[in-house]
Amino acid sequence: MARLYQTRLHTGESLAEGVAVTLPKTQAHYLRSVLRLGPGDKVALFNGRDGEWLAELSSLGKSEATVVPLRQLRPQSPEPDLWLVFAPLKHARIDYLAEKATELGVSVLCPVFTQRTIVSRVNEERLLANAIEAAEQSERLSVPIVQPVRKLETVLADWPEGRRLIVCDETGSGRPVAEALADNVVSGNAVLIGPEGGFTETELDGLRKLPFVTAVSLGPRVLRADTAALAALACFQTISGDWRQGRPDYRG
Amino acid sequence: MARLYQTRLHTGESLAEGVAVTLPKTQAHYLRSVLRLGPGDKVALFNGRDGEWLAELSSLGKSEATVVPLRQLRPQSPEPDLWLVFAPLKHARIDYLAEKATELGVSVLCPVFTQRTIVSRVNEERLLANAIEAAEQSERLSVPIVQPVRKLETVLADWPEGRRLIVCDETGSGRPVAEALADNVVSGNAVLIGPEGGFTETELDGLRKLPFVTAVSLGPRVLRADTAALAALACFQTISGDWRQGRPDYRG
Repeated sequence: MARLYQTRLHTGESLAEGVAVTLPKTQAHYLRSVLRLGPGDKVALFNGRDGEWLAELSSLGKSEATVVPLRQLRPQSPEPDLWLVFAPLKHARIDYLAEKATELGVSVLCPVFTQRTIVSRVNEERLLANAIEAAEQSERLSVPIVQPVRKLETVLADWPEGRRLIVCDETGSGRPVAEALADNVVSGNAVLIGPEGGFTETELDGLRKLPFVTAVSLGPRVLRADTAALAALACFQTISGDWRQGRPDYRG
Repeated sequence: MARLYQTRLHTGESLAEGVAVTLPKTQAHYLRSVLRLGPGDKVALFNGRDGEWLAELSSLGKSEATVVPLRQLRPQSPEPDLWLVFAPLKHARIDYLAEKATELGVSVLCPVFTQRTIVSRVNEERLLANAIEAAEQSERLSVPIVQPVRKLETVLADWPEGRRLIVCDETGSGRPVAEALADNVVSGNAVLIGPEGGFTETELDGLRKLPFVTAVSLGPRVLRADTAALAALACFQTISGDWRQGRPDYRG
């Protein structure tokens, strides 16, 4: 899509007309050395609260940049309440997962350790950096929240009431995904993906007994964990999420 | 999923009981040096025609290996007739796309040059190698066919009768994907994804006029080309493809 403002940046600061915003060193470097922008150039800003703003670069130094919001391009609008609960993956695959999940509209990235999880630590900062970059590129108005990694059993014990957990059941005993998702409408949803080695039988048995779990099958082929995550998120958005409407034409 | 035979290998050779098959140097090296297997060990073989076979390693040298099919584990069964027509992407993204498309059940990988395609050549051998590895891991009984790269206009001019082309229209003017796919049932399908810079207006206008094209929208966010491809394939399998049934329990 031809974009009106190629450069979209996320900031934690409040956005209001004429109130200058300071951007940190990394963003200043990106604007100056990568994009070769200078004072007077325009960018778009968003913070997850105040919508998207057209802003003008007023100063651009080595350690920071200052931008002034000129006018709101889009108001903040509600985004899907869709969590991704996932066992961390190795190497590039977890970067890719954070990027794709953000593009597919996930609101919360919730890494969990399962019994067969091989990866022993999660770099939450890196997850967030990937999510921010994907939010900037996908024209989202928010960035997913990255939760600190916890044990799966802890996350399940604290599970919020009224939120459905869609479990990608790699044994194939779940219901076909379209059928399962069309069934019950709930206020919040989450997709759960196991580690590269799959869930243990004990984990799957436990999950199936939980009242908030819907076990789904993603067809006859064996999917990698990251493929299953992306496929389940796309299916959810298609059948129950915000892909049921077309894209709003917000560029008047 | 716990797999009965961890090692699945694709071969071009015919598979029949007791008829020895020679595997080339790369596969011999993989079996010997990576998996540390030796004569007497079992692997599974498939060739896209004769189903999946349990086979025993009879010899394992530096330049080749010999395996003898013992019995058929699964008969060959029909697989989805789903093409992916895509503008090639840079670097790791095209490897990832070939892997994911194979897991998601694509039968033909058809790279095309569009007006805004930046990548100027396609390594078809590498595409095929990624597809083979993904087929081995996903327990498919076939490997997607990799077509030589052609111009999009050439592919469209030769388009086979009765095959629907699902175009991911990044302007958002396509119909919501679930609605568009539920509509008409055809014998063969294809998904078309543009390059990183999107289709030109001329290309989109031309595509929309073709009788076999269904333009779909994949929601309100801007998706990268690879994300759009995977999302569209997952949606297709969910709504019109082989994810409508659960996984057959073929391990009796």
